[in-house]
Amino acid sequence: MGKGAETRDLILRRARDLASIEGLEQLTIGLLARTVGMSKSGLFAHFKSKEQLQLSVLQAATERFVREVIAPALREPRGEPRVQALFERWLGWEASFPGGCPYQTAIIEFDDRPGIVRDYLVETQRDWQDALTTAARIALEEGHFRKDLDPETFAFQFTCLALGYYQHKHLFRDGSSKARTRDAFEQLLESARA
Amino acid sequence: MGKGAETRDLILRRARDLASIEGLEQLTIGLLARTVGMSKSGLFAHFKSKEQLQLSVLQAATERFVREVIAPALREPRGEPRVQALFERWLGWEASFPGGCPYQTAIIEFDDRPGIVRDYLVETQRDWQDALTTAARIALEEGHFRKDLDPETFAFQFTCLALGYYQHKHLFRDGSSKARTRDAFEQLLESARA
Repeated sequence: MGKGAETRDLILRRARDLASIEGLEQLTIGLLARTVGMSKSGLFAHFKSKEQLQLSVLQAATERFVREVIAPALREPRGEPRVQALFERWLGWEASFPGGCPYQTAIIEFDDRPGIVRDYLVETQRDWQDALTTAARIALEEGHFRKDLDPETFAFQFTCLALGYYQHKHLFRDGSSKARTRDAFEQLLESARA
Repeated sequence: MGKGAETRDLILRRARDLASIEGLEQLTIGLLARTVGMSKSGLFAHFKSKEQLQLSVLQAATERFVREVIAPALREPRGEPRVQALFERWLGWEASFPGGCPYQTAIIEFDDRPGIVRDYLVETQRDWQDALTTAARIALEEGHFRKDLDPETFAFQFTCLALGYYQHKHLFRDGSSKARTRDAFEQLLESARA
């Protein structure tokens, strides 16, 4: 990694933590400049605009999601073990962000604001749905899931559990959210099995 | 309904529509005064503070939720018919709010802000979980759901579908969200049946 790329990487990590707590909309070039101790013009050279900065933060999150959730799951055996790995990896994912899953907070902020950030969120959520659908379809082909399972419905149910987990955790704060979500996922697997 | 109660009711309906689009936090007494064409002091006489106004909007939503979702479902036969009625009534609920389900938007705004609004949201969400848990337990007692079903997990899964529906609808806007959520609910019922 060259010096320029290293600096950009460092800035993006600070930007990610700020965005996770404050929301992407609060992530201005001015605030970020103060946080990393650089000039605003120096940051503009890296990111051109606030929207590009917001997009870069999400793109960095995606690289990390692929590295920490998708790639390790793909190394598991095809079928249910891979579906389970996707679930467990995903469940651990938001813990590394101070304000919770960066996509989730971004979707809440941007779902009614047309633009490149919203487009990117739609695209990545479609990719995630497709990855889950494919994993379910493979589990069906391997004979782990029943033949009449609809893989797309399974993927939707998986995503629903994710959203339920976030809400339960942030609203109730009673320490039971992970166990409850695992129970619900186990039920989902049970109903999907051949 | 006396004149005072009638005025309060009218103000609350305007407040509800404003809050649904802009969020509860944007619902100031000043903005509401301009919208309904009253003085700020006149509104203060009704609501005392911004927090009390926010709480009143949510309490009015709860009255409506009980009237439109809970009460009609309770008139259905005990067991699966009642669970299905809760689902169908709930699925139609957010359509009457211009910016979507008022609890959902309020939870996103207030889950990290301690105070009477957050406390109220936690309380009403617990009530809703309890209502769903009770409905599932009755379905089990009636022999519609299997004996080893965990009613609390069922209630959690039901709520997860709600959250998934909202996100799917607001993010993808492809008209498929309701059908997809119904499919997922049908799967959930299928796995719960005796």
